[in-house]
Amino acid sequence: MQNRLEHDLIGDREIPADAYWGIHTLRAVENFPITGVPISHYRELVLALALIKQAAAEANRELGLLDERKAEAIAAACGEIRAGALHEAFVVDAIQGGAGTSTNMNANEVIANRALELMGCAKGDYTQLHPNEHVNLCQSTNDVYPTSLRLATHMGIARLVEAMSRLKAHFDAKADEFADVLKMGRTQLQDAVPMTLGQEFRTYAVMLGEDIERLQEAARLMLEINMGATAIGTGICAHPDYAPLVCQHLSKLSGLPLVTSPNLIEATQDCGAFVQVSGVLKRVAVKLSKTCNDLRLLSSGPRAGLGEINLPARQAGSSIMPGKVNPVIPEVVSQVAFEVIGNDVTVTMAAEAGQLQLNAFEPVIAYSLFRSIGHLIAACDTLGEHCVCGITANRDFLKRQVEHSIGLVTALFPIIGYAAATEVAGEAFRSGGSVADIVLERGLMSREQLDAVLQPEALTRPRWVKV
Amino acid sequence: MQNRLEHDLIGDREIPADAYWGIHTLRAVENFPITGVPISHYRELVLALALIKQAAAEANRELGLLDERKAEAIAAACGEIRAGALHEAFVVDAIQGGAGTSTNMNANEVIANRALELMGCAKGDYTQLHPNEHVNLCQSTNDVYPTSLRLATHMGIARLVEAMSRLKAHFDAKADEFADVLKMGRTQLQDAVPMTLGQEFRTYAVMLGEDIERLQEAARLMLEINMGATAIGTGICAHPDYAPLVCQHLSKLSGLPLVTSPNLIEATQDCGAFVQVSGVLKRVAVKLSKTCNDLRLLSSGPRAGLGEINLPARQAGSSIMPGKVNPVIPEVVSQVAFEVIGNDVTVTMAAEAGQLQLNAFEPVIAYSLFRSIGHLIAACDTLGEHCVCGITANRDFLKRQVEHSIGLVTALFPIIGYAAATEVAGEAFRSGGSVADIVLERGLMSREQLDAVLQPEALTRPRWVKV
Amino acid sequence: MQNRLEHDLIGDREIPADAYWGIHTLRAVENFPITGVPISHYRELVLALALIKQAAAEANRELGLLDERKAEAIAAACGEIRAGALHEAFVVDAIQGGAGTSTNMNANEVIANRALELMGCAKGDYTQLHPNEHVNLCQSTNDVYPTSLRLATHMGIARLVEAMSRLKAHFDAKADEFADVLKMGRTQLQDAVPMTLGQEFRTYAVMLGEDIERLQEAARLMLEINMGATAIGTGICAHPDYAPLVCQHLSKLSGLPLVTSPNLIEATQDCGAFVQVSGVLKRVAVKLSKTCNDLRLLSSGPRAGLGEINLPARQAGSSIMPGKVNPVIPEVVSQVAFEVIGNDVTVTMAAEAGQLQLNAFEPVIAYSLFRSIGHLIAACDTLGEHCVCGITANRDFLKRQVEHSIGLVTALFPIIGYAAATEVAGEAFRSGGSVADIVLERGLMSREQLDAVLQPEALTRPRWVKV
Amino acid sequence: MQNRLEHDLIGDREIPADAYWGIHTLRAVENFPITGVPISHYRELVLALALIKQAAAEANRELGLLDERKAEAIAAACGEIRAGALHEAFVVDAIQGGAGTSTNMNANEVIANRALELMGCAKGDYTQLHPNEHVNLCQSTNDVYPTSLRLATHMGIARLVEAMSRLKAHFDAKADEFADVLKMGRTQLQDAVPMTLGQEFRTYAVMLGEDIERLQEAARLMLEINMGATAIGTGICAHPDYAPLVCQHLSKLSGLPLVTSPNLIEATQDCGAFVQVSGVLKRVAVKLSKTCNDLRLLSSGPRAGLGEINLPARQAGSSIMPGKVNPVIPEVVSQVAFEVIGNDVTVTMAAEAGQLQLNAFEPVIAYSLFRSIGHLIAACDTLGEHCVCGITANRDFLKRQVEHSIGLVTALFPIIGYAAATEVAGEAFRSGGSVADIVLERGLMSREQLDAVLQPEALTRPRWVKV
Repeated sequence: MQNRLEHDLIGDREIPADAYWGIHTLRAVENFPITGVPISHYRELVLALALIKQAAAEANRELGLLDERKAEAIAAACGEIRAGALHEAFVVDAIQGGAGTSTNMNANEVIANRALELMGCAKGDYTQLHPNEHVNLCQSTNDVYPTSLRLATHMGIARLVEAMSRLKAHFDAKADEFADVLKMGRTQLQDAVPMTLGQEFRTYAVMLGEDIERLQEAARLMLEINMGATAIGTGICAHPDYAPLVCQHLSKLSGLPLVTSPNLIEATQDCGAFVQVSGVLKRVAVKLSKTCNDLRLLSSGPRAGLGEINLPARQAGSSIMPGKVNPVIPEVVSQVAFEVIGNDVTVTMAAEAGQLQLNAFEPVIAYSLFRSIGHLIAACDTLGEHCVCGITANRDFLKRQVEHSIGLVTALFPIIGYAAATEVAGEAFRSGGSVADIVLERGLMSREQLDAVLQPEALTRPRWVKV
Repeated sequence: MQNRLEHDLIGDREIPADAYWGIHTLRAVENFPITGVPISHYRELVLALALIKQAAAEANRELGLLDERKAEAIAAACGEIRAGALHEAFVVDAIQGGAGTSTNMNANEVIANRALELMGCAKGDYTQLHPNEHVNLCQSTNDVYPTSLRLATHMGIARLVEAMSRLKAHFDAKADEFADVLKMGRTQLQDAVPMTLGQEFRTYAVMLGEDIERLQEAARLMLEINMGATAIGTGICAHPDYAPLVCQHLSKLSGLPLVTSPNLIEATQDCGAFVQVSGVLKRVAVKLSKTCNDLRLLSSGPRAGLGEINLPARQAGSSIMPGKVNPVIPEVVSQVAFEVIGNDVTVTMAAEAGQLQLNAFEPVIAYSLFRSIGHLIAACDTLGEHCVCGITANRDFLKRQVEHSIGLVTALFPIIGYAAATEVAGEAFRSGGSVADIVLERGLMSREQLDAVLQPEALTRPRWVKV
Repeated sequence: MQNRLEHDLIGDREIPADAYWGIHTLRAVENFPITGVPISHYRELVLALALIKQAAAEANRELGLLDERKAEAIAAACGEIRAGALHEAFVVDAIQGGAGTSTNMNANEVIANRALELMGCAKGDYTQLHPNEHVNLCQSTNDVYPTSLRLATHMGIARLVEAMSRLKAHFDAKADEFADVLKMGRTQLQDAVPMTLGQEFRTYAVMLGEDIERLQEAARLMLEINMGATAIGTGICAHPDYAPLVCQHLSKLSGLPLVTSPNLIEATQDCGAFVQVSGVLKRVAVKLSKTCNDLRLLSSGPRAGLGEINLPARQAGSSIMPGKVNPVIPEVVSQVAFEVIGNDVTVTMAAEAGQLQLNAFEPVIAYSLFRSIGHLIAACDTLGEHCVCGITANRDFLKRQVEHSIGLVTALFPIIGYAAATEVAGEAFRSGGSVADIVLERGLMSREQLDAVLQPEALTRPRWVKV
Repeated sequence: MQNRLEHDLIGDREIPADAYWGIHTLRAVENFPITGVPISHYRELVLALALIKQAAAEANRELGLLDERKAEAIAAACGEIRAGALHEAFVVDAIQGGAGTSTNMNANEVIANRALELMGCAKGDYTQLHPNEHVNLCQSTNDVYPTSLRLATHMGIARLVEAMSRLKAHFDAKADEFADVLKMGRTQLQDAVPMTLGQEFRTYAVMLGEDIERLQEAARLMLEINMGATAIGTGICAHPDYAPLVCQHLSKLSGLPLVTSPNLIEATQDCGAFVQVSGVLKRVAVKLSKTCNDLRLLSSGPRAGLGEINLPARQAGSSIMPGKVNPVIPEVVSQVAFEVIGNDVTVTMAAEAGQLQLNAFEPVIAYSLFRSIGHLIAACDTLGEHCVCGITANRDFLKRQVEHSIGLVTALFPIIGYAAATEVAGEAFRSGGSVADIVLERGLMSREQLDAVLQPEALTRPRWVKV
């Protein structure tokens, strides 16, 4: 037998006999040939669906709504999926109409058919175990799907936080290594006052640390789920004790401290938590791109640039300019950042467009979040491993720049006053001379006073000089 | 005497003798004729600047860096500004180059000149009290300006939270009023299952409540300041004890529990907290617009729409269609939301573009945040007072819709199964008949069973019916 | 032999002996593990690269810079790629650092190695034919890559225009079919004045027609290429006669009327044309989404919605609500639109971030444009074939709504005046009565006059009634 | 008498006796206290409204629908507004609900009351001349408002094109001045190959020229108007001959070659042309910001930056760093660009949200476009007059960089091959030596050959050297 016949509200369709998915999945595949990316591409989404279906089965068994044999088979099928099996049967397109119904139907069908096999029944024999009546019991797409997005996003953020922590460690290591490298700080691309390269690299680590905190804060919003809401949050067709029970089972299975949303109607229609997560991912992207812009600036050259640091050569930079090496790793990271920022606009529009009791556009929210998270992880890792860890500093060049800088005049401002210091800076700029020489020529300070003030190292921290 | 002469690095300029601002302000006014909106338009920014300058003067006095007479005069001038005076002297354009230097210079000059007056000196007599040497002592634009934005944003968010709370109260009141109004819930604009109009309005209140929490969370990020950072965060020209002291004074003066950022170099260049705040404002906008979209949908009609609720008539809706009334208040709120969402993109780009030790684009970040906050406050208030509080429900119409709905079949699904329920729904759709009649005709349930299950009120909450 | 050895500025690497790509491709694959989507996914990009490399070889042969044997082999290899071969060897990631160098290098290596095979040489024997010296002769990534993006985008837009034309035809067919279906037009979701459903559907066709014009206008910008610019547009290392010659060959090979940009330096750094194309794609997305929003609104119901039209059922709409059918096709189209709008922000940021003589971020621009185009094509086709072509109208219901509408009063406004008409509308709203009855009761018009004015059909076009 | 009484569908309101606006305006002012910016702030919008109302009056007179006396008075009132009078009476907020109805009502009322005065009647005596029945005759907000936006946008773009042309002239002048200034070109911030500073500045002029073309192309879309559409495009209440006639009068009065849209129903609901204009404004912003980023980079220093050019000093750059000068003008321009890009998102969302026969969100589209245009004009002018025209070049420094650059090796690549050239570049980088010395040492070329190839001037254009 090649095919089996399945039926839905439109009519009959032949399904390949060995397919775990069924008629609802087939319809969706035909309706949404958009991206070519099946939901199985987002592994954590499939894991989340399996966790949820297993938790629901166990809650339903405990409530006496599902018999042992069926519950056992469903749980076993889910266990296999959680162990990595059957993902290839999650075939519906990542961007789909229907508010995630196709994803939920796909999961219901795959789990039902695998459970049927485990029960010794034929695939498609839904009289024995039905995708909607048993696998989906006390559930609706409208609670299963948002909950699966939350779990998958939480898992993804956890991996991103790890990648960011690795990158942070690379920056911290460089900050230590460069702790004594004096250089000119810049504001608005103009020479400002001295600092150390270590201080500069520390900021990148600190920024990442702050972003990690914000991400973890946002991730906590993912722990509030709406299982038990069913169709619109009123809990129709769900046993009154089901909501707390499924949350309890899902917490245990996932190892996450999940809670049931206090207002399930609001929770079912609301995408605010996804907007929040996307906004924080955008923040991470903004910082990463800013950091990479700095790395590209500081390493510009080799002879007609700022020339402060050297990024490790990763590949030939040009098909026509031999020997050219380009900052390709920071460049790719900024591109990921631009994508994440664009994705945030997509998420925003999709969230705003939700109407009444449900947001029909959650699939594109999920698609955007999953790509943002996945690409940011890759960007952090390639940045840390292929770039930051191999950065070197041009110490002598940097030191000379500090010594010859006009910016040193700032340190004299408290002593000689704003107007006189402005004059000195102006003359230094016009003449090319040194600030110290001009101050001495003008008799504004003595050599001893100057020496006391102009210790570059001391200029990199607060200090009060009495003259 | 009509004018006084002031001097800067470019040369001399005549300043109107009675102007509190000076040459730096004049240059900025000439350089940035962009929006025509002076910074005084953002009242809380001016208040924040005065708070900061007063706190700095008091810290400097305590450190012995500023003599009593000068400190006293500066504090007095700041006190006047905090009381509402002199705001009209803050004339530089809201969008300005220079990373806020012009705003800080404007503040320094106004405070210096008012302080000079209070000291009995002539305006412009900077030998007695200098804008940069005394008012700006131990400070730089690069700590004063971000700190002022943070304080002003914190004040703005506090007002927004109040406006949102007022709006939330209106929705809660309507939720109570409509608690017993049965209606059809909808998903994807298609009839779903019953709920109450009270449940629907409660979600809007709950959403606002959650947004308030997120806003307050984000506002806390505004309490971390970088006073003492000076030019690039290294604290050059600042007394080592100044940073904690100015934070202490500023906390006392502002009544806010401020803390000094643990890494001032990072804090000086980082706009992450503003990106976060903007992201949360965007979230608020998304929800408000979604809510207003719902109100427009539910009140569509009067005869060819959903016709569930009536918004209070606020103005004639058409210049050509007599008697037409339109949902003008929800419409204006959505427009504000679109603006806030666009502003978030502006903030994002400005934050990403920051280079090295400073973000030069903070003024447009401030301009965007201040407008977002201000317009959201106005939107919340007009929505609450001019729309929500006057909404009425078409109770009988709604009840009839529930009774005749096909969606009731969902309640029968646990009893008659997915396939049979699908058949019933299909026949009801085709024939225009009632679900109950068809179920009875088909002998799927008895009249008694049906009556037990199909109590509309019971359908709006979880329930398990054994048949 | 399993591997061959290749060399670059970093050192030696083993390359699988049968790989057409070489060391530069290998480095890129390692450096950019971002999306997992290789450039071969964008078929037209690979075709464009083969066209360009073939045109360059022919120009170089004609100029005597490349000997017959090499030129022949390169052209033959390109011909194979154009015929569909070797695409799987284009393996670098779609998002890559290096301004497209890796894409160009990948193309150079694949073509060189295939040409070497055709010449009877071993792969990797670059002394016989060198990826950079011969395949890339007179070229740089910085002219090849933007030119390939332009060609690929032009091809993509051509396919999109076809898809939009097919969709337009579906809407035009429905406009004809519904030409006589009277209905109430709405402004601001409130009943306005009568129109026909045909008029409504015609607007969707007209919008598509206008968008097609704008797309074709933007596509023309893609015909201006910068071949001959080499590294930065100055044409270094290119023969002075090469630029016009390669343009001529490329025009012939591609069948497109290409022109060389009048200023190659500007053309090499400028992404304005891509921003323009992306902006027009966004416009298309906006319109498509608006159209789909309308379809969802008009088909809302079946019993508690507007209920004007019926979309064809495409799949079961709910896992829990039996018989529910949702507007899944319009929903997926709007999601594509949100993605395209987000992509436009990505393109914008990438374009803005370009510095000096080159935009390093073109790969993410390409990635975004290709996805936007591809997904819009899919969206147009699924919308036309799976939705629009099967739409039916609820004619009687619509007619009744017109007859009972308050909006008819607008037709009386020129006769009875704005104030009286407003009164009539108000009474109709309050009493539920008909406009005609109230007008008669109030003696504002006679029955004959009313009948003359209130012919619904006549209300759908300009007309001047003298009374 | 202090007040007059006016009436609308809600009831009676007292209007200040001397106010030209009436009850509908009053309601709107109360309903929309959003931005505090009245529509009079956008002068060209008020002019456009006056043009339209005058054209309508003349068309109506010609059709015999409006008597001479009324038509004369309306035209005279409009003429006064066109001459600059009465703008202060256009008081409704720039962001308003109601799809522009309040703007149209405000115009109707002001014109009616001024016309009444001119007719010798009292303000508010609408029995003599009615805002809706006479000033608005054959019109609806839904044709007047979009038409006024189109006219105003067209006027604004014309001014922007002039400002861009002025800026272009500044860049062209600098390109001429710097035509012989050799410098290193850069790709990806890394030294590439030589060019002239004149070539670099010419690109900025060329970019502006291309943007001007795109803007003019988009502006032409503004010439298609929908006067005669009335409420929803069906032309209800409009005389069949009115549409062509009003277009003819409006063309004559405005001096613009206006045409009536071929499908008025589509034209009335469609915002595609505004999306297109906004997209092109965004393109202009992207380019301006890119240009300004370059200017900031090239002028970075004075001692630790690229130091290629000097921007004119415009103001003191720091409150704490004496003598610091910052690139404040380019900075403010980029901020305007970020705002324009954000505005484009606002316009996009507002356009997408339009439903059925009208887009209710046009006011925020107008508000965004007007600000984008106005701020871009200011940005172009401040950039040209306060920055570009005063730029100077550091010629000797730039020449030395070219002579010592490693990038010269690219010119040798066609002669010594990619591999050898890569080796030379690598050694130069490691040793700090010159490319020429290393080539000679390695015996790769003779001194004569080198001299022939390495003429920097010749390197800035295509050339083929036979060796």
